[in-house]
Amino acid sequence: MLIKRFFSSSSSASPNLFKIGSILKQARTFTDADILDYSKLTHDANPLHFDAECAKNAGFDDCIVHGMLVASLFPRIFATHFPGAIYVSQTLQFKLPVYIGDEIIAEVQATSIRQIKNKYIAKLSTKCIKHDGPLVIDGEATAVLPSLVMEPPHLSSTSS
Amino acid sequence: MLIKRFFSSSSSASPNLFKIGSILKQARTFTDADILDYSKLTHDANPLHFDAECAKNAGFDDCIVHGMLVASLFPRIFATHFPGAIYVSQTLQFKLPVYIGDEIIAEVQATSIRQIKNKYIAKLSTKCIKHDGPLVIDGEATAVLPSLVMEPPHLSSTSS
Repeated sequence: MLIKRFFSSSSSASPNLFKIGSILKQARTFTDADILDYSKLTHDANPLHFDAECAKNAGFDDCIVHGMLVASLFPRIFATHFPGAIYVSQTLQFKLPVYIGDEIIAEVQATSIRQIKNKYIAKLSTKCIKHDGPLVIDGEATAVLPSLVMEPPHLSSTSS
Repeated sequence: MLIKRFFSSSSSASPNLFKIGSILKQARTFTDADILDYSKLTHDANPLHFDAECAKNAGFDDCIVHGMLVASLFPRIFATHFPGAIYVSQTLQFKLPVYIGDEIIAEVQATSIRQIKNKYIAKLSTKCIKHDGPLVIDGEATAVLPSLVMEPPHLSSTSS
């Protein structure tokens, strides 16, 4: 049914159709509690996340958020808009530290989409930026999408 | 002090010195509770992780563990052995699904180490395998290590 809807709709009539160039965004501000919960769950006790002195000695302004916790925003976006999406690959360049309280905007943009049978292999550029502009994570991902029709966009998401 | 210890020790006399070829491992078996906690924390509600029917329709045997949760084993290894290590980059190829209850062994191996002032930039191959052999995640990482002297190895870790 979804596929039929895809092929029978024109681009202009389907603002919720994911296509090359489409951008999806979600924002999040990580808290002290998030850092603690993530550390407990992953058993990652790097003092950079708890010990401000250690973080400062390493060249940071304060304790930093785990890079992989910030990067979890990417599969969250896929899951929100394409329930059942399968994560195939991800590259991550951790460019700048993310501090507790920083508003982070994750953005994924489709760079190629290839249909194989009734699924779609999407390649995406994946970025996290701070609300005031700097790029904190850069990378690329591949995901298998069950449909190109997006679930109703999240309030903090946009598609082009 | 650690640096001095590094330069004054021979390789054979320093089994806890991280060098090219060194391998560090940690094992973990993810539970239902881990999946639930990770989903709550990351706001990732992909039904592949909760709905066995959806997972089977996508070609899996059962619900799968979030790829990024499995991949969190890599920075955990860095944190365990090199407190204060800074994560610079990571590539991830999710090769096979990880199911709840699978014992996963994460393994990182140093492929190059470069000293810059009093820090070390290590490039590493990063793999997760199931206890019975199949590769589930393949990739590479870069980390800045404050020292090459490893903290006392974790019980489930080995270094070569």
